[in-house]
Amino acid sequence: MHFEELVKARHSAVNFINDEKLSEEDFKKIFELTKLAPSAYNLQFTNYLVITDEEKKERVKELSYHQYKIHTASAVVIVMGNRNSIESGEVEKIYSPMKMLKMMDEVDYEMTLKTIKDYSDRLKEEPSQLDLELVRNAGIHAMLFMLSAKHYGFDTCPMHVHNVPELRKEFNIPEHLEPVMMITIGKSVDKTRPRGYRKPVGEFVAFNGYK
Amino acid sequence: MHFEELVKARHSAVNFINDEKLSEEDFKKIFELTKLAPSAYNLQFTNYLVITDEEKKERVKELSYHQYKIHTASAVVIVMGNRNSIESGEVEKIYSPMKMLKMMDEVDYEMTLKTIKDYSDRLKEEPSQLDLELVRNAGIHAMLFMLSAKHYGFDTCPMHVHNVPELRKEFNIPEHLEPVMMITIGKSVDKTRPRGYRKPVGEFVAFNGYK
Repeated sequence: MHFEELVKARHSAVNFINDEKLSEEDFKKIFELTKLAPSAYNLQFTNYLVITDEEKKERVKELSYHQYKIHTASAVVIVMGNRNSIESGEVEKIYSPMKMLKMMDEVDYEMTLKTIKDYSDRLKEEPSQLDLELVRNAGIHAMLFMLSAKHYGFDTCPMHVHNVPELRKEFNIPEHLEPVMMITIGKSVDKTRPRGYRKPVGEFVAFNGYK
Repeated sequence: MHFEELVKARHSAVNFINDEKLSEEDFKKIFELTKLAPSAYNLQFTNYLVITDEEKKERVKELSYHQYKIHTASAVVIVMGNRNSIESGEVEKIYSPMKMLKMMDEVDYEMTLKTIKDYSDRLKEEPSQLDLELVRNAGIHAMLFMLSAKHYGFDTCPMHVHNVPELRKEFNIPEHLEPVMMITIGKSVDKTRPRGYRKPVGEFVAFNGYK
């Protein structure tokens, strides 16, 4: 779809057509685009847990104040930040293919790894900074996910994630993956709902400083 | 531009053509699309400070470890979360036009305001939760900004924001606006740089739980 059209067509869905299903292939197409999102030092912090199984989806609904749209959605997607992304093993997994493919020379490779090590040390010193970094990167990633989904014909609704310890237990989510938000996905019941009011640009953008 | 093409064309720029300028009109076009990003309860938390003035841009460069791309960029854009977005005055500014335009009836309006009040009270109880909420929403918003910029022909690079207290003083940024990240914008010098390595989808996506 043309980008402007797509952005205007994307609405947060209020409710979904219950019998519409997404296949793993649909998800793969969406993620093949989503994975091109930028991330700090290209560390690709964002992981996804896609829940399509009906019973498991009901369990997420129970843990999410019984929000009905989780029931009608084809799937609920848990967006997570990966705390291990700043560990040297993970960093090398991303940068060594680039060295191998001659996208970086040895000097550039060593310098980059050193810069990332310093950055990672700073984040570990102050755990709240790592939390913020995971969330910042997940937000960026999740927006591209929602646009990609719409591009392939699916509607989404970004949601808060609740009861994380129970969710973690239910789906055996490893400790290094931190749930940041959820996205329900499917086909919207209502194609014609008007968009919520948006502030004019002048109210949220300033140029060159404040008086 | 067609969406897939756009996503594939968007790269983080390493350096910019120094004499390319963006006008306020260019920025307005970009923000007219960006403002359609979703936000929690449509509270539109994200604000932007656009710095085009050469001297002021040099000052941001000084405060950002002298990163050269800030010098060559047409502008540097500071992406900020607005702490006041959860205050009742701001909430009413967004929802009362919707009631006036009959997009909501009186009952729906009162219920929505009550729900947002509960949410806002919870965020105020735990300030770190408000920080995370601002960053989550800013990440979502910033991704749409970067895609919209590319759609209108401009390249971007998302960056960490440094030395926030000095930046705040320099540009008189009010206390309720919290800098979350920066984006340099302009026209990239290098159109043909290969994209950084991306993990295959199977490495960051799981279905229905973990073993």
